[in-house]
Amino acid sequence: MYIGACYYPEHWEEERLEIDIKLMKEAGFTVVRMGDYIWSRLEPWEGEYRFEWLEKIINKLGENGIRTVLCTPTDAAPMWLHKKYPDMLLVDPQGHKIYPGARTACCFNNPVFREYAEKIVYQLVRYFQNNPNIVLYQIDNELGVFPCCCDHCTGKYREWMKARYQTVENYNKECGMIFWSQEISEWDELSIPRKTRKALHPSAVLNFKRFCSDTVIDYCKMQADIIKKWAPHVEVTTNMFGSFTNQNHFELADVLDVASFDIYPKADEAVVYASSRLDLVRSFKKKNFWMLEQQCSQAAFRADNRAVLPGEARMMTYKSIAHGADAIVYFRWRTCRFGAEQIGAGMLRQDGSPNRTYEELSRTCRETEILWPLLKDTTVNAQVAFVFSNDSIWSMQSDKKITKKLNYLDEMIRYYKFFENRNIAVDFVAPGEDISKYKLVIAPMLTIVTKEIAQWLEAYTDQGGCFMASYLSGFYDGHNVVTENYYQGELRNLLGIKVLEWCVAEDGKQNDMSMDGKQYGSDVVNMIVETENAKMVAAYEHNFYKGTPAVTVNQYGKGEAYYVAAASFGEDFYEDLLSKVVHQYVETDEAVRGEGLNIMERTSKEHKIIFVMNHDDREKTVDIKVRHQNLLTGDEVIGKVPVPAKDLLILASRP
Amino acid sequence: MYIGACYYPEHWEEERLEIDIKLMKEAGFTVVRMGDYIWSRLEPWEGEYRFEWLEKIINKLGENGIRTVLCTPTDAAPMWLHKKYPDMLLVDPQGHKIYPGARTACCFNNPVFREYAEKIVYQLVRYFQNNPNIVLYQIDNELGVFPCCCDHCTGKYREWMKARYQTVENYNKECGMIFWSQEISEWDELSIPRKTRKALHPSAVLNFKRFCSDTVIDYCKMQADIIKKWAPHVEVTTNMFGSFTNQNHFELADVLDVASFDIYPKADEAVVYASSRLDLVRSFKKKNFWMLEQQCSQAAFRADNRAVLPGEARMMTYKSIAHGADAIVYFRWRTCRFGAEQIGAGMLRQDGSPNRTYEELSRTCRETEILWPLLKDTTVNAQVAFVFSNDSIWSMQSDKKITKKLNYLDEMIRYYKFFENRNIAVDFVAPGEDISKYKLVIAPMLTIVTKEIAQWLEAYTDQGGCFMASYLSGFYDGHNVVTENYYQGELRNLLGIKVLEWCVAEDGKQNDMSMDGKQYGSDVVNMIVETENAKMVAAYEHNFYKGTPAVTVNQYGKGEAYYVAAASFGEDFYEDLLSKVVHQYVETDEAVRGEGLNIMERTSKEHKIIFVMNHDDREKTVDIKVRHQNLLTGDEVIGKVPVPAKDLLILASRP
Amino acid sequence: MYIGACYYPEHWEEERLEIDIKLMKEAGFTVVRMGDYIWSRLEPWEGEYRFEWLEKIINKLGENGIRTVLCTPTDAAPMWLHKKYPDMLLVDPQGHKIYPGARTACCFNNPVFREYAEKIVYQLVRYFQNNPNIVLYQIDNELGVFPCCCDHCTGKYREWMKARYQTVENYNKECGMIFWSQEISEWDELSIPRKTRKALHPSAVLNFKRFCSDTVIDYCKMQADIIKKWAPHVEVTTNMFGSFTNQNHFELADVLDVASFDIYPKADEAVVYASSRLDLVRSFKKKNFWMLEQQCSQAAFRADNRAVLPGEARMMTYKSIAHGADAIVYFRWRTCRFGAEQIGAGMLRQDGSPNRTYEELSRTCRETEILWPLLKDTTVNAQVAFVFSNDSIWSMQSDKKITKKLNYLDEMIRYYKFFENRNIAVDFVAPGEDISKYKLVIAPMLTIVTKEIAQWLEAYTDQGGCFMASYLSGFYDGHNVVTENYYQGELRNLLGIKVLEWCVAEDGKQNDMSMDGKQYGSDVVNMIVETENAKMVAAYEHNFYKGTPAVTVNQYGKGEAYYVAAASFGEDFYEDLLSKVVHQYVETDEAVRGEGLNIMERTSKEHKIIFVMNHDDREKTVDIKVRHQNLLTGDEVIGKVPVPAKDLLILASRP
Repeated sequence: MYIGACYYPEHWEEERLEIDIKLMKEAGFTVVRMGDYIWSRLEPWEGEYRFEWLEKIINKLGENGIRTVLCTPTDAAPMWLHKKYPDMLLVDPQGHKIYPGARTACCFNNPVFREYAEKIVYQLVRYFQNNPNIVLYQIDNELGVFPCCCDHCTGKYREWMKARYQTVENYNKECGMIFWSQEISEWDELSIPRKTRKALHPSAVLNFKRFCSDTVIDYCKMQADIIKKWAPHVEVTTNMFGSFTNQNHFELADVLDVASFDIYPKADEAVVYASSRLDLVRSFKKKNFWMLEQQCSQAAFRADNRAVLPGEARMMTYKSIAHGADAIVYFRWRTCRFGAEQIGAGMLRQDGSPNRTYEELSRTCRETEILWPLLKDTTVNAQVAFVFSNDSIWSMQSDKKITKKLNYLDEMIRYYKFFENRNIAVDFVAPGEDISKYKLVIAPMLTIVTKEIAQWLEAYTDQGGCFMASYLSGFYDGHNVVTENYYQGELRNLLGIKVLEWCVAEDGKQNDMSMDGKQYGSDVVNMIVETENAKMVAAYEHNFYKGTPAVTVNQYGKGEAYYVAAASFGEDFYEDLLSKVVHQYVETDEAVRGEGLNIMERTSKEHKIIFVMNHDDREKTVDIKVRHQNLLTGDEVIGKVPVPAKDLLILASRP
Repeated sequence: MYIGACYYPEHWEEERLEIDIKLMKEAGFTVVRMGDYIWSRLEPWEGEYRFEWLEKIINKLGENGIRTVLCTPTDAAPMWLHKKYPDMLLVDPQGHKIYPGARTACCFNNPVFREYAEKIVYQLVRYFQNNPNIVLYQIDNELGVFPCCCDHCTGKYREWMKARYQTVENYNKECGMIFWSQEISEWDELSIPRKTRKALHPSAVLNFKRFCSDTVIDYCKMQADIIKKWAPHVEVTTNMFGSFTNQNHFELADVLDVASFDIYPKADEAVVYASSRLDLVRSFKKKNFWMLEQQCSQAAFRADNRAVLPGEARMMTYKSIAHGADAIVYFRWRTCRFGAEQIGAGMLRQDGSPNRTYEELSRTCRETEILWPLLKDTTVNAQVAFVFSNDSIWSMQSDKKITKKLNYLDEMIRYYKFFENRNIAVDFVAPGEDISKYKLVIAPMLTIVTKEIAQWLEAYTDQGGCFMASYLSGFYDGHNVVTENYYQGELRNLLGIKVLEWCVAEDGKQNDMSMDGKQYGSDVVNMIVETENAKMVAAYEHNFYKGTPAVTVNQYGKGEAYYVAAASFGEDFYEDLLSKVVHQYVETDEAVRGEGLNIMERTSKEHKIIFVMNHDDREKTVDIKVRHQNLLTGDEVIGKVPVPAKDLLILASRP
Repeated sequence: MYIGACYYPEHWEEERLEIDIKLMKEAGFTVVRMGDYIWSRLEPWEGEYRFEWLEKIINKLGENGIRTVLCTPTDAAPMWLHKKYPDMLLVDPQGHKIYPGARTACCFNNPVFREYAEKIVYQLVRYFQNNPNIVLYQIDNELGVFPCCCDHCTGKYREWMKARYQTVENYNKECGMIFWSQEISEWDELSIPRKTRKALHPSAVLNFKRFCSDTVIDYCKMQADIIKKWAPHVEVTTNMFGSFTNQNHFELADVLDVASFDIYPKADEAVVYASSRLDLVRSFKKKNFWMLEQQCSQAAFRADNRAVLPGEARMMTYKSIAHGADAIVYFRWRTCRFGAEQIGAGMLRQDGSPNRTYEELSRTCRETEILWPLLKDTTVNAQVAFVFSNDSIWSMQSDKKITKKLNYLDEMIRYYKFFENRNIAVDFVAPGEDISKYKLVIAPMLTIVTKEIAQWLEAYTDQGGCFMASYLSGFYDGHNVVTENYYQGELRNLLGIKVLEWCVAEDGKQNDMSMDGKQYGSDVVNMIVETENAKMVAAYEHNFYKGTPAVTVNQYGKGEAYYVAAASFGEDFYEDLLSKVVHQYVETDEAVRGEGLNIMERTSKEHKIIFVMNHDDREKTVDIKVRHQNLLTGDEVIGKVPVPAKDLLILASRP
């Protein structure tokens, strides 16, 4: 298994290399990541390339069994380039330049910057094309969307929109640009949505967000194409990060061979939130992924940079693996001293001596060596999928909404939590993906539903699937225009309802509803629903729409389609509703169970590897109904087995 | 009576027109408002005008008894014009441009934009000059002040200041520009107050706010002049909105034939706050007004866009009428689908079918048809006036004040509430207006008092009026310079006091005072007063000025002048103080009274129409002492009569 | 003694002068401050100087025994100069200009502005060089740092950095500019840290802050040099203000003859906070200072401008004197009417009549006349010093820190409070100053410790001093780079510890610790410490580092060095820890003591003057063990003597 750390040899004296390699070998490393932010060393003066020093390091590591993930260095242009072309800078919607002096300052649509970026990537990959030690290319670093408003972006945006809408007439009509007289008669009248006095047109906002996402993808593809051409045998990735809301990562993953991720959970995110992110990363390519920055010690970028407690880095490693990571690269090898991440800590102290993290992760590396032979062919097999729609997220980021209180990710987590707590694996899918294998598909706040998306969901349900959507789903068409068909739009047939009206509370106090004789309070929004073919599952208790449905279910073909019309309820509600549904649709394996434990499985045709994680401060007990092998000890286990605090068991089912 | 809705036929297919007209007729419509934001349809290419399509709609509506309020479309310039003249844009005090992509992006002082605006208005009005279906012109839409700092504004500001002060010497002296060495020696050294490192000069701030207000008035007058010239038989208005603090609406109303308003109260504003706004609109021209946007369903611009509850739109309609609206135009006819107001709802659903609002307002339209014959000659007759001084509001918007906690409108509402609760009609007056008819004139926080204003108030009081001012009144002269005459300035004679000092609490805890043996706590400011001719009405209880006056009254000629030296007290205080005064000065009609009811009257020489509104959730009882006619049923009523929850009676006194 | 007020005769009519002088003489004035913000009167047109009017005023005052502090008028350029050179303006990091219209708008590195500033200062000082009435020059007004990003600043910054680092190689290496590829190959690739997308490089931030501080010093020196050349017999100052964190005031004081200060404490700052500021000002030159703006009435710049209560201005005057002020200039003579300070009040009302402040301060002036003969040779003699490190403050202002919750001044005040409460005098010292005379030196959060600073502290401790440092001390080297030597860096020998790790709580709940059997809770940060030679004084109670030291002490030579590893505790902790230490090291004079009294001493070789201040609302008692003279009454006092509420005794010990 590839396991190792992010390594910045250029931050230290050359002679240090040998000691580092010795410590890495002792720790059990098989990989390092290098090369992000070394453009100034690779090309210290324009056109003068210096790769030998890096080659020497890569080879030395290789000779010691440590291979390299090599990053392209394009996230920070060298200062000589900034000096030569001060116009490469990003421009924000108010007209402010983003200056150099940190990272990520250049516009991806700037032709000069692109040319220099292409050149350095080409030179780098050409130079190392036959180097057997390079196991993966990482493109740039944490590529992200910036709403750049420079002239190049304006020009590209016009081309992009023309390609999307063909004619200005189409654009004007489909998006309703007559509103506030924003129709154009030629494409060069189109401008990027910037700082305005009143609210921006939501269709312009959505289209520009799509364009910004495509800008990143296009830039990434430019680099991927070079790498694939000159080093076709090496896989390509880029390290994704964050909450995936600004960028369409499913589409970004299309230009990559493998997905990868950087993870730095806050204390209260370490369980549910982190799981959802890991499932998303695995879902982008529906296969196992690289963890390119697994936090191992204090981070450098938060308001409060908490310590990673003893045992925690090891547990987080297994959480990543359990969710589908096949390679782990810790951030970072040696504690930083200078620059914006100077307070971030690593496995070695600033003076190069190992710290407690080093000890803990050396143990972890040795453990993964034992696990790998069984683990390598396994992955996570989910019966449940969540629809993850960037268009829907972006539609909720328009200036004006029915209420500012709604948040796509929060709504998703309300449902996701149930599955995390029940140890039921979850995939995420982009609209249009093959979902025939799933038993249950949940679409929280799927605001944008085109006819194609509706048909996709209908076909799934028709064949016996269970579909569940929450309020606002179907509200907009593909242009971010409100549907003409009540407020469920294209989902009317599938859900068997009409959504007549929406009610938002100014004071955050909304209606109660009752389901199966139990009451639940909602605090933000109530959609008023009239059933057509659907049946009422829960009813509102107050207000002028008292007695009308708050939850409905519609028999559709061989399947069922649920609609949850209100938000947000306490956890109880999601537990109660989903329990009913899961019970009917999802097969759960009860062979290994335990209260308060986080249990995840990776399976192959032959094996099942079960991670029984105890994130709590106190020992817990796992109930193993069928004989398993404890992979870390080699023992066979059955019956009630203790799981120590902040520790885990890794079990293998017998073939 | 003119009643109808805002209509955007350009948002829908042409063939829809006939169905809309049918539904409007069935609802009882007599008017629609159209044309805001159709510049791109009226002039799709420069100089090529297209009015026929609009004429067809206007005429079709007219043939069906529905007349048109026609808006000039100047609030959103077409994109071809933005492309041709990118310099028309507003510039904020930091130097940021306001970009197109919403509405309201162009500078009213930009000569190119003005020329194009003039042209389109001229063409539009010329074209329709003989069309008998146009009942009113609305200039632009919700004209508002923007502190534009472009070069054209700078130039105009210099001219405006020169006209105001004649010489730089006058300006330097009257405003005290020696402070921080800001004297000028030529007018072209004068600049607009922009982003500075320390606080701006308050005289510069006030003058620039006046200039910005005058800029809007001048722009509005430019359009009004064109309309009056080419369509002299049609009345002209512009739809005011908001809280009237950024713009001098009394002066704006001078260039209009009739005032009009847009109203979207929040849940907690629907009673007192809305009343004060309606009284202000009626007061701008001291006559009945048009309600050009009467909210009928969800708005689109709030953080939380609450539903308008069943019955509420009807009640809000009658509230407007009771306060002097003679025409009601609902916003909007059909629920929006696209653009920045895409979530705003109307009387029809997006698919064109009537919703519950349509049903409710059709009933309302039919009711107004019955009322109109009696209603049409009536208006509101107030015995009480509030002085509304934009200069005073603006003086409180300077960078530096005695405390940031004071707010002009909040202070006004503290007094206004008493009259709303007692069902006593209130007018607002601008300084200098004829106030001889009022029994009581209240000036909350009238900070700017010139010699002319003082004389105006003295003359009023001298003739037997009762005047009441609160703390800070008289603090500044007409240049926003602190008075040299203690802190009551020109009001010294009238109030019979000297204001020695002001005390502000850093922690929001201020002094108590006692009046007639009862205690009241104040939380923000105490003025320390020494009486000259005045008598003490209430005294402070603590601090080094214990025992000095907190409220005074001065006999002045045949009248009295009160001064309330502190802020802010609980509601009790305003109730207790104003009860005493009102009892002496104001005649109240006790013929129709009821606890918890909102009772408003409109009167003519012959009739009195009484609106008995119950905004509560429970039925109330009205006590009718003299026989009246219930206009909605035709019955005669006397004695204790129930008023259903969220409903009203409309009574006519017998001639 | 010099006592008087800030006087703006240019704000009033010329004839007023005589009345003002009469009132000043009656009050006992011996000085006024004039001339800030009169450039437009001194040079109304370019090159045409008008000094006669000012000379007349200065001389008239002088004839009446009132001397003048003359300010250079450079803080507000005249409008004709702004018009002629619109490019003199400051530019902020986002690119916004700071416009004229207030004060402080011009860039100190702009060569045109500097030339004009030099010229006006030269003309002014030349003109008055032989005028015997000028007792002090004040340079500009409240000179402060602005991070100007104009091209001139960029150019100067490059020169400044070159002078500091000599070669780009040095700079790249010492600051670790390889981080995010920010190495430069020529100085003209260097740019000012501005608005970036990610965090700025901390070494760039620190260096730019130093440069900004040096910019102010250089500008001040330019003026000081002119004054010293042409009026060598007159002392030079500039009035410092604020909390001293943006500017290195120790270095600024080097170009001055005497330090001075402006003080406007909020109600809750009047005691501890004000004392620390006064001690700082005295410390800048380690000698008595001028109070150039002693607040006497309402200020003009706060959100809430509270009244100065009766007696308070007198008490604040004595607080200043007790801490080392040898001259008091009240702000301001006459209440302002116009400009940004128009609500600020003075000793006269706007109409020129004396108010209660005038009466109170006249009494104070007469008192100081009595005190001065004894007072004039005295100063404050402190046994305790606090290290005040601007570099450390600035290092904590980098974009990214271990937590945003830490604040240098708050931490300093936690320790300082103990000494204020015990009436123990405190000095502040810059790193490197002679500290051999102090018994105790405290360094709160001394993050930046170079080898030189460490040696300085070692030498002090070695000779028997007691040194105390808190967490983060020694964290960075002189380039704002994290030390390679654990997290105490260069302080390892002195403190006898290694700091292994830092722990920050995301939720603001941190560990407890126990000292001498008592428990104390910390809420922000815990450093994990391993003792080498040091002994544990307190231990953590929880978490994985339970039982490790939270406070340590190291015997070093003849002295001791303490380390407080955590923050922040309740007041108890600082009381308990410092009591132990002070008891051992500091001699306290118990001759005059009293519960709840603020007792400060000024001493000469012959006398000791003791200020016994009662800031409370109730009378207190002072216990005088040795016979003293009550200077205000002339009586001898001994035993228990009452101190009235909001009043003081001033005692002289007998020689």
